[in-house]
Amino acid sequence: MNLVKEEKAKIKATLQEIGTLVGGQVEGDPALEITGIASLEEAKAGEISFLAEIKHFPRLEKTKATAVIVPLSLPPFPKPLIRTANPYLAYAKVQALFTHRPYSAKGIDPRAFIGQNVKIGQDVSIYPFVYIGEGSQIGDRVVLYPGVFLGESTQVGAESILYPNVVVMDRCLIGKRVVIHAGVVIGSDGFGFARDGAQYLKIPQVGIVQIDDDVEIGANCTIDRAAMGKTWIKRGVKTDNLVQIGHNVTVGEDTVIVAQVGIAGSTEIGNRVSLGGQVGVIGHIKIGDGAMVGAQSGVAQNVPPGQIISGSPAFSHREWLRVQAVLPKLPELKRALTNLEKKVKALEEELKKVKRS
Amino acid sequence: MNLVKEEKAKIKATLQEIGTLVGGQVEGDPALEITGIASLEEAKAGEISFLAEIKHFPRLEKTKATAVIVPLSLPPFPKPLIRTANPYLAYAKVQALFTHRPYSAKGIDPRAFIGQNVKIGQDVSIYPFVYIGEGSQIGDRVVLYPGVFLGESTQVGAESILYPNVVVMDRCLIGKRVVIHAGVVIGSDGFGFARDGAQYLKIPQVGIVQIDDDVEIGANCTIDRAAMGKTWIKRGVKTDNLVQIGHNVTVGEDTVIVAQVGIAGSTEIGNRVSLGGQVGVIGHIKIGDGAMVGAQSGVAQNVPPGQIISGSPAFSHREWLRVQAVLPKLPELKRALTNLEKKVKALEEELKKVKRS
Amino acid sequence: MNLVKEEKAKIKATLQEIGTLVGGQVEGDPALEITGIASLEEAKAGEISFLAEIKHFPRLEKTKATAVIVPLSLPPFPKPLIRTANPYLAYAKVQALFTHRPYSAKGIDPRAFIGQNVKIGQDVSIYPFVYIGEGSQIGDRVVLYPGVFLGESTQVGAESILYPNVVVMDRCLIGKRVVIHAGVVIGSDGFGFARDGAQYLKIPQVGIVQIDDDVEIGANCTIDRAAMGKTWIKRGVKTDNLVQIGHNVTVGEDTVIVAQVGIAGSTEIGNRVSLGGQVGVIGHIKIGDGAMVGAQSGVAQNVPPGQIISGSPAFSHREWLRVQAVLPKLPELKRALTNLEKKVKALEEELKKVKRS
Repeated sequence: MNLVKEEKAKIKATLQEIGTLVGGQVEGDPALEITGIASLEEAKAGEISFLAEIKHFPRLEKTKATAVIVPLSLPPFPKPLIRTANPYLAYAKVQALFTHRPYSAKGIDPRAFIGQNVKIGQDVSIYPFVYIGEGSQIGDRVVLYPGVFLGESTQVGAESILYPNVVVMDRCLIGKRVVIHAGVVIGSDGFGFARDGAQYLKIPQVGIVQIDDDVEIGANCTIDRAAMGKTWIKRGVKTDNLVQIGHNVTVGEDTVIVAQVGIAGSTEIGNRVSLGGQVGVIGHIKIGDGAMVGAQSGVAQNVPPGQIISGSPAFSHREWLRVQAVLPKLPELKRALTNLEKKVKALEEELKKVKRS
Repeated sequence: MNLVKEEKAKIKATLQEIGTLVGGQVEGDPALEITGIASLEEAKAGEISFLAEIKHFPRLEKTKATAVIVPLSLPPFPKPLIRTANPYLAYAKVQALFTHRPYSAKGIDPRAFIGQNVKIGQDVSIYPFVYIGEGSQIGDRVVLYPGVFLGESTQVGAESILYPNVVVMDRCLIGKRVVIHAGVVIGSDGFGFARDGAQYLKIPQVGIVQIDDDVEIGANCTIDRAAMGKTWIKRGVKTDNLVQIGHNVTVGEDTVIVAQVGIAGSTEIGNRVSLGGQVGVIGHIKIGDGAMVGAQSGVAQNVPPGQIISGSPAFSHREWLRVQAVLPKLPELKRALTNLEKKVKALEEELKKVKRS
Repeated sequence: MNLVKEEKAKIKATLQEIGTLVGGQVEGDPALEITGIASLEEAKAGEISFLAEIKHFPRLEKTKATAVIVPLSLPPFPKPLIRTANPYLAYAKVQALFTHRPYSAKGIDPRAFIGQNVKIGQDVSIYPFVYIGEGSQIGDRVVLYPGVFLGESTQVGAESILYPNVVVMDRCLIGKRVVIHAGVVIGSDGFGFARDGAQYLKIPQVGIVQIDDDVEIGANCTIDRAAMGKTWIKRGVKTDNLVQIGHNVTVGEDTVIVAQVGIAGSTEIGNRVSLGGQVGVIGHIKIGDGAMVGAQSGVAQNVPPGQIISGSPAFSHREWLRVQAVLPKLPELKRALTNLEKKVKALEEELKKVKRS
């Protein structure tokens, strides 16, 4: 739990220990003591750094880091190294090592409101001004920051963290190890109205939102409850901030959704899909597993698995790149066409003359 | 009030009662007892379902529902039916019948903060951690969920529901039966700054936001107060989540605004307008009654009543469809043009030769 | 401090005093007493109004205002006037004069939670249900509205106002005279994950957000903490509502960001840049000082200082205008091209015949 980050942890590890952690090849003294990790520019003596890509090689030459995590393909370099296929992943692991703090439960603050028949697990941290509605269930080691609202009969699985002012409306289900950033609203009513003459009649939204294990939801996102049934965010999904997910949407496992994306009702997003920033997806379509959608695109029809698309409305990314290369020349094209029309007209005239002569 | 939805209501109705409620034609035993409503796939014996469109007919054949609400045009079908012109609307009414719970007032929790000279109506539900500023007025049967903030001299009309963490800044006016979903901010300062050399001077935003009766505002929307005068959301407007409405905007009656739309300052949106998801509208323009704007469009000039537009910048939707059909072929067009230029050049050369000979 | 705005301030000023305040030329009785400011249409006798641009002259003729702030170039007009180069700026100053209330500190409400080792300055206003984490420092005359959350070791500079439900996570730094509107989240984790096979491993986000003096942040914005180092919003930046700023972004002084803009990680925005509504900016690029980006544009590469760009992806605004003028004619162009191809084919045939004959 990363409540206290202002001081570096008092942790040390040997080069060999780090090499083992990241599954890399150690070059240099395996007993070398490492006290932290920082960028190539900011690392001090005693710290390790990382070179994500060979092309940043000049930054490596100037670093004061004691050791560096580098790609397998780096030529010999006179510094203690850990070679690995994915230095970025290795960085994530080492950063986690050095910033990790053992979780210490804060308990239940008396200024929190706990409704009737609420079940609370072991070693939770429930801050002041939290509201937990009747019949809700809170797993072990859950952290609920100030201003969190849980409606009636909600469930929050073990080791999940709900940051300040997160709202989870009635009956919604949050899995284990879920991280929900501040200001997120889960289980607001889906946008469902039936026309009744010139006016609209609200359609009761009686479904729920279900969020599975290991999901992370960015700040101020909104995920609406289903009209009936459930809006379903599956295991491992990661969303950036200010994302909107409509009622009855399904988002498949390990899908990544960048900031400000909007997904309309009843759409099914597959596994390992990637939606770029500010993408819009209309309702009632399917986006296949592994598809990728470029930033600001508008997806208006089904997308087969693995396809890469861009544009609004979106089509093949490769074709879209070609279109974008031509688009700025459109006025030029129009002029060329007008010129050509004149020339053809002139040719026609001349040919007539020739034939007459 | 839909506080408790986890159990189906203990309500029964006869087929005839439901037929009368939705104004439909009953086929089958009018005394048939119905205990709930569900989708065609999920309905159990005793429940009613609905077929919104004839094209979903195959789903009807497999349903276990005891009765079904269907379009007028459905051919004869061997099940108790209610025929109606708008099954979707009928569904909304029947769903409301079965999920309705009589409202029971929670009273005023002692952990709420009530400012001086606040007037509170009958049978309200004011949860813990609500803050009501000096001089505010709260109507009968209003529900204020935890974390709601009302500034000084605000008004909230009878039977309105403000979900958790809704913020209504000073002097803003909320009508009757208004629903405001969690995290909405009403009455934040309009984005008004005057250039003062290289820097900006804030223009005091001294107006208000007025929201009329029967409006519903989606989660995490923002509606800014007017510079002077009012930002005005008229009767029956429905907005989806994460919508931004700038200072001094007027939104006409029964207009529908889909998620992530942004409307810049001083623009006037007419009645019964429909703005698709992620639409942007510039400031100081007028969108006429009944106009429709396609998703992700950018509206940069006045829109006459009833017009349907798309694109960024937006123009006639019909023309936009034609443009979108050609757009992916733009590189091809360019190649064709270049080819043609060569051919015309060749023709010109040849014609010269012919003339010379 | 604009806590109480429902009544006009009991302030009077002479025409000369106002002329001096705005640096304008007074025409008419300098001792004339002015009691308020309003729009040309709404101003009553005794009040001053303003004409921002000459083209609105007809509105001037009907006003009941006692005096008017006008552009230098206005022809002689039979009313007390203040002539100034920038009437809009003058309006901002006079409006501030009449709506200004001396700040009165509310003190620290006992229902606020103040952590250990928190330092609080003089004359603060800390409302109920505020949470201040351990080791935080709050400057003089700071206002923290209900539901504000400050994590551990945060700092808020003198005279800053944090509206309801603003969240500032651990160690983030807020400067002096900063205004943060309701629902803003500062210091949520950056969106950083390393691929680990088919799944993702979270990269600990150990940096902070630093917001410098005189910044204003619109409602429900999100500003992520840096992976390492800081996300940095420099002096005088103004953002509208629902803006997303990614980890390690830098935004230069006096830059203006309109609603619903998204800026991806590690991008550097220069000074006095202007980003229109719903603009998206990809990560790891630089936008030069004074550049302007049109609404809904997508910025995918570096932008030199002073450039004006539009489109998604964006290019020169001037060229973009030309492209947009042609775009609706694209189907017409295609038809013209097809026609021309036929004509050229016909010409080729005919020429062959001529040559054979």
